[in-house]
This record gives sequence, structure tokens and C-alpha cells, in this order.
Amino acid sequence: MSIKMITDQAYTMIEGGICAAKGIRAGGLNCGLNPDPDKYDLAMFVSDTDCEAAAVYTQNKVKGAPILVTKEHLAKNGGKVRAVIANSKNANTCNADGMEKAEEMCALAADAMGLKTEEIAVASTGVIGETLPIEPIRSHIDALAADLSYDGGGRAEYAIMTTDTVAKEVAVEFTLDGKVCHLGGMAKGSGMIHPNMATTLNFITTDAAISSDLLQKMLSEIVKVTYNCMSVDGDTSTNDMVLVMANGLAGNDRIVSDAGHPGKVEEAPTTGYGIVYKALWLVMVNLTRMLAADGEGAGKFITCTVKGAKDDKSAIAVAKSIISSSLVKCAIFGADANSGRIMCALGYADADVDVSKVDIDLASDAGVMPAYRNGYAESFDEDFAKNLLSCEEIEIRLDLHDGAGEATAWGCDMTYDYVRINGDYRS
Amino acid sequence: MSIKMITDQAYTMIEGGICAAKGIRAGGLNCGLNPDPDKYDLAMFVSDTDCEAAAVYTQNKVKGAPILVTKEHLAKNGGKVRAVIANSKNANTCNADGMEKAEEMCALAADAMGLKTEEIAVASTGVIGETLPIEPIRSHIDALAADLSYDGGGRAEYAIMTTDTVAKEVAVEFTLDGKVCHLGGMAKGSGMIHPNMATTLNFITTDAAISSDLLQKMLSEIVKVTYNCMSVDGDTSTNDMVLVMANGLAGNDRIVSDAGHPGKVEEAPTTGYGIVYKALWLVMVNLTRMLAADGEGAGKFITCTVKGAKDDKSAIAVAKSIISSSLVKCAIFGADANSGRIMCALGYADADVDVSKVDIDLASDAGVMPAYRNGYAESFDEDFAKNLLSCEEIEIRLDLHDGAGEATAWGCDMTYDYVRINGDYRS
Repeated sequence: MSIKMITDQAYTMIEGGICAAKGIRAGGLNCGLNPDPDKYDLAMFVSDTDCEAAAVYTQNKVKGAPILVTKEHLAKNGGKVRAVIANSKNANTCNADGMEKAEEMCALAADAMGLKTEEIAVASTGVIGETLPIEPIRSHIDALAADLSYDGGGRAEYAIMTTDTVAKEVAVEFTLDGKVCHLGGMAKGSGMIHPNMATTLNFITTDAAISSDLLQKMLSEIVKVTYNCMSVDGDTSTNDMVLVMANGLAGNDRIVSDAGHPGKVEEAPTTGYGIVYKALWLVMVNLTRMLAADGEGAGKFITCTVKGAKDDKSAIAVAKSIISSSLVKCAIFGADANSGRIMCALGYADADVDVSKVDIDLASDAGVMPAYRNGYAESFDEDFAKNLLSCEEIEIRLDLHDGAGEATAWGCDMTYDYVRINGDYRS
Repeated sequence: MSIKMITDQAYTMIEGGICAAKGIRAGGLNCGLNPDPDKYDLAMFVSDTDCEAAAVYTQNKVKGAPILVTKEHLAKNGGKVRAVIANSKNANTCNADGMEKAEEMCALAADAMGLKTEEIAVASTGVIGETLPIEPIRSHIDALAADLSYDGGGRAEYAIMTTDTVAKEVAVEFTLDGKVCHLGGMAKGSGMIHPNMATTLNFITTDAAISSDLLQKMLSEIVKVTYNCMSVDGDTSTNDMVLVMANGLAGNDRIVSDAGHPGKVEEAPTTGYGIVYKALWLVMVNLTRMLAADGEGAGKFITCTVKGAKDDKSAIAVAKSIISSSLVKCAIFGADANSGRIMCALGYADADVDVSKVDIDLASDAGVMPAYRNGYAESFDEDFAKNLLSCEEIEIRLDLHDGAGEATAWGCDMTYDYVRINGDYRS
């Protein structure tokens, strides 16, 4: 499924993913973790110079060993990262030797590239609770290092994909202090997606110069209205991580202040902080939409917009509750305008809502249909509704008429294929 | 799917459902709400004498009109109820004329049986947001009143079923003050089940004499460890209600004290309160298990038991998180021992758990398999695991080794049929 991109006239959408930024070399190959020799399973990328970094991690209490090792390395290396090694097919989580193996992956990557172990971040994704075989990684690390190139972002992306059916790369170009800057990222993820602080594996690089503190601040804010507002199946993964790295090679004046910024994306940013903030949001919001649209088994992409909520937090709770509802997802799969299920999911959301004020519209390329007014069902034409819900992109619009809070959340329908994929995931 | 019953030697399991208690007449028929003339859609039952009553309702902020009317009538009638009218196929929820229609249903029932409107409780289940046609009910109410009989519980149950594939009736006989007492109930529900305070429609009657205050106290406690510990699909309905009615016709001394009762089911109760408490628990826990096993599209019945938690509340949170996980449900559908998903669902449960102490076993009639020890995956034989998970009743057992808290939760696998049923529910 190919979905619309969110764009902005001050930013040019470009190719390249994590290699869109200057000075980033990336690569990927099959090392044998995945028995299919055509599917890559090991990725690496490295910056020509040190990067200031920021990260958010899963809030699941069961954390993958790579998460713990990456946190340790960032702390040890003063918040800086130089390179990342990542594998798919095995999450290296809940294994007695997990920490040891994650450390060894970093040591192998550092050796192969002449770096220090603590300059490396590590990530793994795949089955939880199976011992990670290190030998395939050890025996392929030199080939992987030799494969690194300034246009290798796509190979790295292919190596971290699991049940993903499409590659997820977004990059933008913009100007700062008269210098051309780039910010781009890649993501993987299809199931076990119900973020809390982060989701899936996401790596983002930029050649803009910015302090790691400010990078962390904007990442933490943006993740709340992008990745954290998406759900495929209600399951928060053990290995989620978003890592942003800034190497400063664009040559702009290093950004060290967020003075005057409202803490949310601006219509027309003027400060350096605001301009990078919007670039990061553009990349993250589009990756979020691509992740939701490629949810396991998905046939339709669902956007739920809520306005008129008491506050943004209530709006987020309502929007997420609706796109997470199995019954709403099944109804959209069947193009069945069973909008009572939307009211039901709103009613059990953890938010203060006056149900007697709720308006709901269903919308798609085929038109807009009023479904509820003042909390009561509207009559509608079944053929028009069927037609509307048969489009690939479906929008559920709520107006709660109770304040200025607003939010958007993204999800997908629930299909036979979700069940099929997840009934037999390990093989 | 036929599942094992939980029994107790001091209680005899008997037939009859809501008519197991003395003095209860029930009936059901097709009035035309459901276009299939063979499927009943209107139920009624009445006690020969006044009943003390207790009820719990959905916590969804969107509440069906019948819920609001029933609450009103109970308050108006001093906590007493004499009869119930209920329909399937239409939830009478989110309609502008919902209250009026629910009141009219009670008035029609009262007229037909020579009772007062406020003596009637009303319930509706089915599609949300479609106007309830009252004419079919008006034109069939006299036939329904004529149909009432002391063995009509099964006809009433058939009339409240929606996507249920099996009737759900449980009743027990026990002795109190040398008098033979009965307590029995019926339930409907298959999808939109993720209780919070109650679930689906459940009606329970007893001929034991007990004050409505004490009946309410035991109901509120028992619902927490039965209906509220079940999930089919994470969606909390708008029309959930559990109503318990006690007419006292067994002739025991009316129970007016719960002195000495521990607030949970006892091994061998000795007080009148404790004996009725256990009878109510036996009926509710077995109805809960039947509801979970008949979840929409379910092929397998899943029980998750947690012990060693910091407290019962944490144990409930963990057990519910696991049986609600779409990924755990899909893995069990596929008989795939992907136990890492159980650890993952434990990790995002809202509970204080030391993940390094967690033991997990998988069990069924085919045997027991250690899956995790001290938070780490155990190796296992794939053939044995496949065989074990191919049984119809699957048990997931956790020991958190961190306290005395324990809980049990019930659910079912996620199958193609869940998606099929819910992609086209309204037709």
C-alpha cells in the first residue's frame, strides 16, 4: 500500500534515508541468521565524524539486552555515538547470555572499523527468547565493513526489516544559516507495535550541528505525537528504540538554544532549533504513517483525528483508543459502517469526554459521511458508506466540542493475514 | 468447544439456569427484530414474589439507554426487582429516542404481567446506533407473557444470544439452615468483551433469602475475580450488566450479616453469607469460563494463572495483560510456542514485577513444559510443544516469586473467524 506523504514547502523530500546526511556510510548483507540468503539480516552504519546523539527506548519492563548495552555505551561515551550495528531475525532478549552477545556485536563492529566499543550502538529485532548465534556475525563483520558506502542506506534498511513488506525511508533537505542540511531516517516494524516512548527500530541521522541535549528534548516531544500515536496490535515491544545522530558536517552554527520555541511543530519556524525540529517531525511523522500502513496483514491505513478535546492528552487517549480497537479495525476491514464501535472505543478511553457532544465523520477519497451528531447515530446511505470505506486510506474525524485539545493517531485494519502471520511467526 | 466445569463437593451442579431457583418463570421468542424466525430475540423472566437485587454495570462512559433505565428503576423501587425484559439484535444505544424506547419496553412488560413499570429491569444487546423498532416488541409482548414457564430458562437464554455459539447456563444446589437452596444464571456474550466492572449480559437468580446490601457486596467482590478477569478482544461494551435477584422462597433465615467473612471465596464456608458467596462464585466463574471459551471465532480456551505476585492486584494486571495480547492469542491459535510474547505482555502490564524472577510453564492435557526460568527462555522440544499447544484448553502458568498475590484470567485464541465475524457484524 502506497500512502500520501506529509510535506512542507520549506523542505524538499529527498532519497537516501540515513545516508541523506553528509558523511554517513551504511551497508547490509545476509550473514546467515536468516536462512533465506536473499534476505539481509545484518546492518551497520557509521559517521565519518563523532555524532551528538539522542535516544528513546521502549517502556516495557522486559528490555532487550541491546537496549541495555546501547544505553550503557551512550552514557560511557558522553552522549556521543559513531556507529550502529543491528540485526534482524533474533531479538537477543530474555537470553541468559544476551548482554554478553550484545557487547560482542559492538566489539566486532568496533574492531572492523577501527573504533572503540563504547562508540557503537546495537539493536536486535526478531524472535524473543532464542539464543543469538554470534558466529554468523563474527564471520561476516569484515565483509559488512567493506560493504559500507555513502549510498548504502537502502541495504541497511533491508537488513533490519522483519515482516515489513515495504522499505521505510524518509529524508528532507533544508537550509540553515545559508548551509544546506539533511535529515533522514529508516524504520522497521510491522507487528508488536503499540508504542510507549518509542517504537520498533528507528535510526535517524542529520548533518546539522546541534547539541545532544536539545536533540533529546525535541525527540522526546516529537515521539509523543508521532510514534506514540500509532498502534498495530496493542503489543508494546521489548526492543523499541529511536536513535538520532547529528554529525554537524553541514557546517551550520551549532544549535545550543531553544529560546522562543513553543514545544510543538510550528507553521513557519524561524529559529535554527525550530527548523531542525520541523525536519525531525516531518521525517518521524511520515515514518510513523508508513509503519502504521504496513502493519502486519494491513489492507487499509486508518487515521483518527480528534479536535475539541478538553486538552491534547485527552485527545491522544481518545484517538489511540479508537485506532487500537479490534472491533473498529475489523469493521473497516469489512467496509462495514458500524460506527457504534467508534463511540464504544471513545467511551472506554481514559479521558474526560462529554459523550453527548460528540460528532463523528467518516472520510476517504470517496467523500465524507456524518456518522454521529451530539452522541447519537445519524442515518446514512449504505451504498455510499460501503464505497467510502472501500478506499485504502480511511479517516475517522471526531469533534468533541469541549475545548481546544487535538491529536492524530494512526493505525490499520485487522485482517485474516494478521492472524496468519502471527500464528506462525517463528518459522 | 466443551470445557471442564469448576465444581465443589458441597454444591451440586444442576440444570435450569435462571429457572433453577424456585418461583422463576421465563420465556423467549422471535418477535421480528432478528429476520431469522428460528432465532429468538426477546426474553422475559419474572419472580413469583419480590426480589432483593444487586447489579454491576459497564464502566464505559457511553452507556446504553437500558442501563440508565434499569438503574433508575432499581433506585425508585428500593433496590427490588420483580422481572426482566431483554432483547438481542439491537443495543438501543446512542439513539436519540433510546430512553423512551427502554421505558416503553418496561411499560409493555409491566402491563402484560400486571406489574408496575419500576419493578422491571431492561437490557438490550446487538448493534449500537440503530433505532430500536418498538412495534415488534409491542405486538409480541402478550405471546411472550403467555410463554413464561418454570422451565423456560433455556428459551430466555436463546433469546439473548448474539454471536454466541453455545448456550451459557450454570446452576447449583446447596443447603442453608437445613433448607435446599438454588442459585443459577445465564449469560450471553462473545465479542466486545473486556470487562471493567461487569461484562455482557448476565442474569442470576436465587431462592436464598439475603439482603440486597450483602448481595451487592458479594457481587462487587466476585465480579473482580471472574468477569473482570476475562478478555476476548479488548473492547469494553456499552451495555454490560450483571443482575442478581434473590426471592427468598427457599425459606432460609434471611442473611443480614457477613461477619467473619474474608472477602474472598473460602475453602469450606460455614456462615450463611459464605455459603451463598461460594454459590455465586461457582456460577459466575463457570459462566466466565464459558464466555471466554466461546469468544468470537475461538478455537482454544486459554487460562492464565499467576502466583507469587507482590499482591492480588498486580497478579490480575499481569494475567489480564497476557490473555489480552493479540500476539499471544495468535501464537496459541498457531500452536507456536513463541513464549517470548508472554514475557513481552508481562513486561508492559501495569504491575510492579521483577522480570529476573519470572518462571513460566505452558500446560494442557498433553503435559507441562517449562518455558522461562528466572526471566530467561528455556530450551524445549518443538514437537512436544506443538502437541501441547494443539489441545483445546491451554494453561499459561506464571510464578513471579515475589510475594503472595495470585490471580486467574481467561481468554481465547485469535482466529481468522474473529476477523470474519467482525468484518460484517451488522448484517
